[in-house]
Amino acid sequence: MKESSERNVIVLCSGGMDSVVALHWAARTHTVAMVLSFHYGSKHNDREIPCAARHAAALGLAHSTLRLDFMGDCFESHLLKNGGGIPKGHYEEETMKQTVVPFRNGIMLSVAAGLAESKGTSGLVIAAHSGDHAIYPDCREDFMRAMADAIRLGTYAEIALIRPFIDRSKADIARLGHELGVDFSDTWSCYVGGDIHCGECGTCVERREAFELAGVPDPTHYLNAPPLPPKPVAC
Amino acid sequence: MKESSERNVIVLCSGGMDSVVALHWAARTHTVAMVLSFHYGSKHNDREIPCAARHAAALGLAHSTLRLDFMGDCFESHLLKNGGGIPKGHYEEETMKQTVVPFRNGIMLSVAAGLAESKGTSGLVIAAHSGDHAIYPDCREDFMRAMADAIRLGTYAEIALIRPFIDRSKADIARLGHELGVDFSDTWSCYVGGDIHCGECGTCVERREAFELAGVPDPTHYLNAPPLPPKPVAC
Repeated sequence: MKESSERNVIVLCSGGMDSVVALHWAARTHTVAMVLSFHYGSKHNDREIPCAARHAAALGLAHSTLRLDFMGDCFESHLLKNGGGIPKGHYEEETMKQTVVPFRNGIMLSVAAGLAESKGTSGLVIAAHSGDHAIYPDCREDFMRAMADAIRLGTYAEIALIRPFIDRSKADIARLGHELGVDFSDTWSCYVGGDIHCGECGTCVERREAFELAGVPDPTHYLNAPPLPPKPVAC
Repeated sequence: MKESSERNVIVLCSGGMDSVVALHWAARTHTVAMVLSFHYGSKHNDREIPCAARHAAALGLAHSTLRLDFMGDCFESHLLKNGGGIPKGHYEEETMKQTVVPFRNGIMLSVAAGLAESKGTSGLVIAAHSGDHAIYPDCREDFMRAMADAIRLGTYAEIALIRPFIDRSKADIARLGHELGVDFSDTWSCYVGGDIHCGECGTCVERREAFELAGVPDPTHYLNAPPLPPKPVAC
């Protein structure tokens, strides 16, 4: 994990397993001024955000949710409530492109940067990791580097975009969270947004795989948990 | 002015004189899919956005306004309705820093990039110019370059951030608008957001100065139009 000097930070936390581990990591490494979630009209926002709020509360930290209603109203994606169904299968598959929310990370990071500057903090923590989805351009490291430059150059405080997991895999994050005592049963991944995790959408498959690879118990209740599909081989 | 090959673009248009000229330029140079304004809770949004809407309508173009209510609700700036008074004087003066809305350009460009990707367009036009306010970090060219990289790298369409005025001054823009027949009386600059332009805030002073330097008639009605203050000399 990349070390960085202590800062006063805002942690972007969706309530998913990666960002909840990032929050617990940040609470030990930095001074967390605020835990920030975004409600952008996805099918699973109402499932995941309460997890973020509960982890923040357990750590004694302030939690805020900003509404980005224009995304749900105007953008097109199967991830959004106004979009089509969530495909089953592995993340790398072409069908998962339907779930991209255009420039979602760019928008969330920009808004967080503005809020950070407004609140006098000097860093943002995001749980971007090495296994992040190459099918989504705004998850790739070259995007993250450019965005980090834009945020540093575009703010008086030269706000730093801290990516503690950028050299780590999702399995590494599961392992770290286990070491930190994170209650993974109170994190949410499933894009379908039902009562329990579906077990078969791209993000459920990725979650199950991470626990398995990490050798960490998976406390999640899945609606279905068929054998994990093999990763598609790149051509 | 920088030339660029024709694209299908969204034009960011606040209703100020620079972005209205950019809109008229874009309508001749590109295919304009949408004219986009943002309502972010500033004192002058309700004055300027109707100007953008009228210019779009006159050109037969679709106009949309996206609400960024979280900025007015959570950010701190004298430019916002919840903030303090707008200072008088020249833009370069230290007091004008009170009017910065943190990372405003980053946020608006990110949202526009997401919308552009969602709507299948391949470019954004922004009226950033060489005289843009060095006191605002997210108006500087090094920020714009990094943001252009982030938008290109973070979208499937590799959306281009087109800055036709980046090598031009505000006076150049006044001259170009005059040549294009832009009705400057239907553009709004004043940060105070009263019934008519105050004539004395930083953006009114800058507007008056641009017309004067360009040798172009200024059709604006100002509440007060005292002699223009000299530009502060950089130390």
